[in-house]
Amino acid sequence: MDGTGLARRIVADAAAAAADLRERTSTSPCLATVLVGEDPASVTYVRMKQRRCAQAGITSRHVALPASIGTSELVDTVAGLSEDPSVHGILLQHPVGRHIDERAAFEAIAPHKDVDGVTMHSFAAMGFGEPGFVSCTPGGIMRLLDEYGVELAGRHAVVIGRSAILGKPAGMLLLARNATVTYCHSHTRDLSSMIRQADIVVAAVGRPRLIKGDDIKPGAVVIDAGYNAGNVGDVDFDSAAARASLITPVPGGVGPMTIATLLAQTVEAATRQLAGA
Amino acid sequence: MDGTGLARRIVADAAAAAADLRERTSTSPCLATVLVGEDPASVTYVRMKQRRCAQAGITSRHVALPASIGTSELVDTVAGLSEDPSVHGILLQHPVGRHIDERAAFEAIAPHKDVDGVTMHSFAAMGFGEPGFVSCTPGGIMRLLDEYGVELAGRHAVVIGRSAILGKPAGMLLLARNATVTYCHSHTRDLSSMIRQADIVVAAVGRPRLIKGDDIKPGAVVIDAGYNAGNVGDVDFDSAAARASLITPVPGGVGPMTIATLLAQTVEAATRQLAGA
Repeated sequence: MDGTGLARRIVADAAAAAADLRERTSTSPCLATVLVGEDPASVTYVRMKQRRCAQAGITSRHVALPASIGTSELVDTVAGLSEDPSVHGILLQHPVGRHIDERAAFEAIAPHKDVDGVTMHSFAAMGFGEPGFVSCTPGGIMRLLDEYGVELAGRHAVVIGRSAILGKPAGMLLLARNATVTYCHSHTRDLSSMIRQADIVVAAVGRPRLIKGDDIKPGAVVIDAGYNAGNVGDVDFDSAAARASLITPVPGGVGPMTIATLLAQTVEAATRQLAGA
Repeated sequence: MDGTGLARRIVADAAAAAADLRERTSTSPCLATVLVGEDPASVTYVRMKQRRCAQAGITSRHVALPASIGTSELVDTVAGLSEDPSVHGILLQHPVGRHIDERAAFEAIAPHKDVDGVTMHSFAAMGFGEPGFVSCTPGGIMRLLDEYGVELAGRHAVVIGRSAILGKPAGMLLLARNATVTYCHSHTRDLSSMIRQADIVVAAVGRPRLIKGDDIKPGAVVIDAGYNAGNVGDVDFDSAAARASLITPVPGGVGPMTIATLLAQTVEAATRQLAGA
């Protein structure tokens, strides 16, 4: 499954919508990126997101905070962005440091600016099928599945991983589309036999090549949302590809879809806010 | 599994805590019950909850609204109770009528008064392991499982049903305790073979005797959260009991635990609010 090509089209659509918005309102969509500390991977991620924003005609405003910042200062900073009418979307780069209450910081993002889909409100909205922004990676996965016409209703989706921004919301979105959903994780006994039942496998656990071809039911659809050191996914691509009907590569599968979803949701947020809706 | 006996002990504890609170603050915990229309089953449920409140020393304030009420009036009423310092918990009896946006009405309940665990905030709190109130039936199920020492970590729990106040949060609570969790529902293909894999079955679908003994893996724990006409659960008790290691009856299993959880959470809410916490 070609995430790169689909993401390019989504970003082009977002760019067109951003240009249209700029023409109508003289305002560009603005994404605030908040980075705590200088973790090299996080610095790289944020830069990449800013670059993609620029390419799509989205302004980004970067807020760099020292690693020593406390929870209350971070919460205040994020809350200030939530109230700032010139900011339409907020991305708080994870992780923020162990001494900080990350949940409190995420919750300072107003739901209508939560274009990264990390707040409790956004999670519940995904769970209940209410309006709201989706977590970007799960949202990107759903878009890929739809693009390739993968039938979801009544099919068994096995999600490996249960993080708040990836595994859990991915399961909720699949459940909302009437898949039978199983959540597996580090405590799951006989993981292979669980995965072997799956019509749709979503690997979201962050362990390089954990899932092998032998684990894949012939004809299954395999989504690799893992991203480990050395550009390696959670799935052993070659052996899995031999059995899967569709599979996402790493890189070039889920990764580009995550950023595309972020950009599309930022433009959507700006459009709504500038319409006063 | 004896829900009646365990519920009695929980209610006794709540009553003692309510008495203690009354002595310290001269205030009784107060649960506001909101009923829209006169659906006979809803009238009965609300009366039962009020009676149990009275037995536990919890004041209940009943708000009866005509079936013709609109969403905005209902939202205003609930929001008023959220702001009223003499009310500590709010129960909005489901269903509220098809012409009303039930989600909007639920969301008017302040999270710190959501003793029935129906708001999006409470759902996300269950999903993320954050502080908050649990949905009463799933919370009661977890308490029963703990009372009987049922090991959850690594075991496969199959939840049949995915409603916002029962199936979905039940799965989230089991996942938080490290069970492998599968959500089944009306679209699930070959439901019997899914259930047959379960170490723990949670039936929460509202279809009388849908699940038979043949569906139960020998030694499984069976929780019947169904409640259908004629006091019949979702599980065919006799055939399932012959194979299960533990099973809840209907009535006398999950039902009393739901109300006990409501009362316990009301006293807890009052305790926190009166401490100004």
